[in-house]
Amino acid sequence: MCGSSTTDIYKEFRDELVGAGLLIPSGVRGVYGRSGVFENVIEQFERYVTREGAPQKAEVMHFPPLFNRAHYCSINHIHNFPDLMGSVHSFTGKDREHAEMLRKFEGGEDWTQDLHPSEVMLIPAACYPLYPTATGTLSTEGRIVDLKSFVFRHEPSDDPARMQIFRQREYVRLGTAEQALQHRNDWVKRGKAMLESVGLQVEAVVANDPFFGRGGRMAKATQREQDLKYELVVPICSTEKPTAVTSCNLHLDYFGIAFDIRTADGQPAHTACIGFGLERIALALFKAHGLEVKAWPAKVREILALD
Amino acid sequence: MCGSSTTDIYKEFRDELVGAGLLIPSGVRGVYGRSGVFENVIEQFERYVTREGAPQKAEVMHFPPLFNRAHYCSINHIHNFPDLMGSVHSFTGKDREHAEMLRKFEGGEDWTQDLHPSEVMLIPAACYPLYPTATGTLSTEGRIVDLKSFVFRHEPSDDPARMQIFRQREYVRLGTAEQALQHRNDWVKRGKAMLESVGLQVEAVVANDPFFGRGGRMAKATQREQDLKYELVVPICSTEKPTAVTSCNLHLDYFGIAFDIRTADGQPAHTACIGFGLERIALALFKAHGLEVKAWPAKVREILALD
Repeated sequence: MCGSSTTDIYKEFRDELVGAGLLIPSGVRGVYGRSGVFENVIEQFERYVTREGAPQKAEVMHFPPLFNRAHYCSINHIHNFPDLMGSVHSFTGKDREHAEMLRKFEGGEDWTQDLHPSEVMLIPAACYPLYPTATGTLSTEGRIVDLKSFVFRHEPSDDPARMQIFRQREYVRLGTAEQALQHRNDWVKRGKAMLESVGLQVEAVVANDPFFGRGGRMAKATQREQDLKYELVVPICSTEKPTAVTSCNLHLDYFGIAFDIRTADGQPAHTACIGFGLERIALALFKAHGLEVKAWPAKVREILALD
Repeated sequence: MCGSSTTDIYKEFRDELVGAGLLIPSGVRGVYGRSGVFENVIEQFERYVTREGAPQKAEVMHFPPLFNRAHYCSINHIHNFPDLMGSVHSFTGKDREHAEMLRKFEGGEDWTQDLHPSEVMLIPAACYPLYPTATGTLSTEGRIVDLKSFVFRHEPSDDPARMQIFRQREYVRLGTAEQALQHRNDWVKRGKAMLESVGLQVEAVVANDPFFGRGGRMAKATQREQDLKYELVVPICSTEKPTAVTSCNLHLDYFGIAFDIRTADGQPAHTACIGFGLERIALALFKAHGLEVKAWPAKVREILALD
C-alpha cells in the first residue's frame, strides 16, 4: 500500500489503481478514464445519497460542465482561484485565418493565441450554474435543489484524489439565513454518518481552501473566522493530510446578492450546499477496503448494493 | 408544436421544453441544465443500450470530458473542425500577473489573453480518448469498448437538438478491417431497430459532416465516396431536415496509424464506432410522444422501464 516517503505515497496508490484497471491514464496528470467497476461504486454511492436526500423532495437540475462566462464574471472566482480556472476558447475565423493558424500549428508555433474566448468557462463547482437561474423571489419554504456535474480545477497532481476533473453531487438550499444554516448543519451530520456507515474514518474540520496569492490570505481568514465551510476529511494516502471528500458550505447572502435572489420578505436570500466529491469517496473506499470490491465488508456491500 | 416558419420551429420547441421544465436555460445558446425527468429518460435509454450491447462483453472506459492536448494535436480535428473546438486555458502567473489580469478584468478589457493553454482540450467525441490508450498489439479477437462522455462542439444554436455540450454513449471496435466493418454494419441495423422500437421514425443515411472551409470539401467528398459514416436520422423539429441522433462510423486505419495500434499480424488496426447522442434521442422521444412521459405509449414506457 502507500509507502513512507511523502513524495511517493500518491504515485504508489495511483499506480495500484492503474494496475488494477480502475483508473486509465490519459497522459495528463489528474485526468483519467474510469473502469466499469469504478463507475459502479460511484453510481451506487450516488443512489445512497438520493435515498438519504429523498425526504427533502429536491428539484433535480443537472448541468453539463460548462458555465456561462458572463455569470463567471459576476462572482469572485477570478480573484480567489484564478490558477484553478478553465476558460474555453474556440476558433471563429474564416479560411484565411484558418490557414494562418494551421501554419503555426504545423510549424510548432503557439497557435492558441489565434483562438477567441467562447461564451463558456468550465464549472468550478456543481452548484454555480444554479444561482443565476434562481434570480427572483423565493416562497417562504425556499428551495432545495439536487445538482450533479463534472467540475474542473486546474491543479495537475500525482495524487489520484486530486483530479483536474471530477463529479460533485450536491444538495443546495436557497432561503432564509436560518434555513441555509440548518441545511448546512444537518448535512454535516448526515454526511458524516453516511461516510462512517460505509466504513470510512471521517472527521469534520473547518475548511482550508487554497485561496490564491497575497490577496487570498484575507479571504481565507474570513472563511475560517465566520465558520462558513466544513469539510469531511478521510485519510486516503496520508493520515497526516487527510483528503476532503465532502464539503458543507454556508455562502451567507453572497449568491443572493450576486444574482438577485430574494426571500419572501424581500431580503437577499442565503444559500448553503453539501457537495459529495464522488471520485474521492470511491478512492477512499478502495483505499479502506481494498481494490477488489467483492472482498469489501458485507455491511458496506449491502449499503451500496454492490452484490 | 413546431410552427411552419423555418426560423422559428427550433425556438418554439426549445421554449416548450423550457416551459415544461425539462431544460433549464443557462443564458448561453445550446447550454442547458436537465431536469430529473429528462435525466431519467436518458438513464433508461442508456440501460437499453447496455442490455442490447451485453453480448459483446465490452470493457467499460468512461472518460471525463477532457482530452490530452498532445493527443488532440495528433489527429486532424484542427484541420477539419476548428470552429467546433474547445481549448481550455488557465492562469499560471504569480501575484503580479494576477494584479494585471484583474486590472483588465475590472476595466472591461480582454483579460483572457493573460491565460495560457492548459494540457487539455474539451473532447470532440466520446471515443477519442480511447485510441491513445490502445497503442500496442491487439489479440486476434481485438477489443470492444463501452464509452460514455460529455462532448463539446462550439456551435451556439437555438435548435435544442444542437447543444454545445451533450452525452455520447459509444461502442468502439478495434481489430481487423473485417471486424471493424462488421461492427459498424451490425450496429447500423441494431441501432435502427432500437430507435424504431421506442416509436421513432428512423432512416439510415450517409453522413453529412460539417467539415470546415474550402479544404473541408475534399474531406467531405472522400467520406461520402468511401461510404464511411452512416447516421440514423429522426425528424425532431423538421421533417425536411431530420436530426442525426446516432452515428455509425468506420475510421479505417486512421486511429490505428495515428496512435500505433496494431492487429495480431502487425498491420495498423481498423476501428469503428456506434455513438448514441443521448440528449438528441431524449428530445426525439419528447417530440414524438409528448412532454408528459406518463402519457407515452405503453410499449415505449415498458421498453424504457419508465413506470
